[in-house]
Amino acid sequence: MTKYPSPFTVFPVTGIGEISPGDDIAGMIVEAVTGGEIGFEDGDIVVITHKIVSKAEGQIREIPDETTYRQLVEDEAVSIIRRRGDLVIAQTRHGFICANAAVDRSNVERGYAILLPVDPDRSAHRIRILMERQANVSLGVVITDTFGRPWRRGLTDVAIGISGLPSVVDLRGTTDSHGNTLEVTEVAVVDEIAGAADLVMGKATGVPAAVVRGLEFSGDGRVADLIRPPSEDLFR
Amino acid sequence: MTKYPSPFTVFPVTGIGEISPGDDIAGMIVEAVTGGEIGFEDGDIVVITHKIVSKAEGQIREIPDETTYRQLVEDEAVSIIRRRGDLVIAQTRHGFICANAAVDRSNVERGYAILLPVDPDRSAHRIRILMERQANVSLGVVITDTFGRPWRRGLTDVAIGISGLPSVVDLRGTTDSHGNTLEVTEVAVVDEIAGAADLVMGKATGVPAAVVRGLEFSGDGRVADLIRPPSEDLFR
Repeated sequence: MTKYPSPFTVFPVTGIGEISPGDDIAGMIVEAVTGGEIGFEDGDIVVITHKIVSKAEGQIREIPDETTYRQLVEDEAVSIIRRRGDLVIAQTRHGFICANAAVDRSNVERGYAILLPVDPDRSAHRIRILMERQANVSLGVVITDTFGRPWRRGLTDVAIGISGLPSVVDLRGTTDSHGNTLEVTEVAVVDEIAGAADLVMGKATGVPAAVVRGLEFSGDGRVADLIRPPSEDLFR
Repeated sequence: MTKYPSPFTVFPVTGIGEISPGDDIAGMIVEAVTGGEIGFEDGDIVVITHKIVSKAEGQIREIPDETTYRQLVEDEAVSIIRRRGDLVIAQTRHGFICANAAVDRSNVERGYAILLPVDPDRSAHRIRILMERQANVSLGVVITDTFGRPWRRGLTDVAIGISGLPSVVDLRGTTDSHGNTLEVTEVAVVDEIAGAADLVMGKATGVPAAVVRGLEFSGDGRVADLIRPPSEDLFR
């Protein structure tokens, strides 16, 4: 097996502006991409921070004070994994385990917090279909959030919603260049794509989306594929 | 702050061939990159799987049977974090927490296992200096391994050695587009770069390195920056 992959490129998508509930994210991204130098090509993967998806879907809550914020975190959590001082590591109803049950006060007006989309795969699918129709191309969509991880410092972006591309690529049963059967080699390609896109989306620069061009993956994953079943998880 | 980032591209480096102890990795990569279509440009980041670094440094051990392998894992571990059946999550002497203390039997001849480099930052630095001299460019180097993570299925590539680029970019104290001071926003950019490169390096395709072009980061991180201190870690 000597099929070499091609190079790929990650483009920042700028000029999308502020999002309000009810806004047509798909239309705004298509306009920003096709109106600029990037354009769309078949097979492009559009990576979108969940912040703008959540805002457009009205997943914003007023938090007049710290107590309201703390209560919102508890409400969004289906299970508390760890608690130390103000830091809460919790599981969301989607199955994600992250700080503060993903309730976020950055990149939103003061006094408000952003929640995750109710059904991020469905959001990704809807945005994908709308963009594909409008731009007349075949796309993948990844919705991302920024999570910490145990043991390693620093945050990385991961996928929280997927449409039109695989989540985990299973190489088990394939052989490496020495003919060894690979033992456990399920690669979370969609998380690697999310992290790659974050390198141009940054944290504070007003780049809420990126276009990843040149990756060839086929498959249609769901974000649930990325949730490790509790029975296999040694860290709950 | 409205400095938009530029696009970046990830190129697979092919044609490096099999590595033996004593091989000049730096020279082989320079030859593969400058002899092909990619070439080198100032600021390129060269991402290298630790497998070829470890092989060149002789970090290979014979494991005639399963017992020898198990013993090697115990020897490489300074601390066992979890154990279930044959699965051992252990801390290496570098501080990494990963499966089997990073002792790896894939992509090596049957009956052998690969260990991590003794000092991966030093390896990265050495390879960087040699490549820079030979190609007359300014480079960054990231050495990677493939780790699992709690809670999320699938493996991703992360940095285990760094030279000439930052590890964690600290955005604390900067403001987002709404003027909120960002709370905790240390981004592990080098891990996102490692994951991006894995998308072309794959697992079984004989692409042991990648060139990442177009990212502008300044700084000189060490892989120790990525190790979360036990006192801050809720999952040991």
